[in-house]
Amino acid sequence: MAHATDETLTDFRRSIDNIDAALIYLLAERFKITQKVGLYKMTHQLPPADPEREAEQIARLRELARQASLEPEFAEKFLSFIVQEVIRNHEKIRDAAP
Amino acid sequence: MAHATDETLTDFRRSIDNIDAALIYLLAERFKITQKVGLYKMTHQLPPADPEREAEQIARLRELARQASLEPEFAEKFLSFIVQEVIRNHEKIRDAAP
Repeated sequence: MAHATDETLTDFRRSIDNIDAALIYLLAERFKITQKVGLYKMTHQLPPADPEREAEQIARLRELARQASLEPEFAEKFLSFIVQEVIRNHEKIRDAAP
Repeated sequence: MAHATDETLTDFRRSIDNIDAALIYLLAERFKITQKVGLYKMTHQLPPADPEREAEQIARLRELARQASLEPEFAEKFLSFIVQEVIRNHEKIRDAAP
């Protein structure tokens, strides 16, 4: 039985770590923008949710997933995971508003 | 009340869409690697889970989140979301194996 920290595994893990760092920084940038969207919607009295936009996002991400050989269902789950966090952040902004 | 599809909102949404495309392609690449890790572990009879590696990943992602002004708790939730999908994929590989 090979040791769990062999060369091949270490090499795979370095690539995963690089990708994870990129994902975290991209997510940070995405939340910066959705925070701006939240503030903008609040100051312009726009409704926080937009079902039409959300349906377009789901369709687009499912198509992108297909192109990237990823399961469309996963892309949809991923978007919903992120959107839950966006809603949580928007609620915090709203609660902190005077 | 401003219209929900005004210029500012459209501009924000274009940036979100760009970031989402990048996220999907990065996730596709990450799953390509974890699929290789799964096959490698299976052929080398390595245990599928590695708690020490997982603890290191969590600590590292929390630290990266802090640097990116993201909540460390979110980074940890995100990793666990991805890892659940990796486990699901590994189970599929295992079930498909002769």
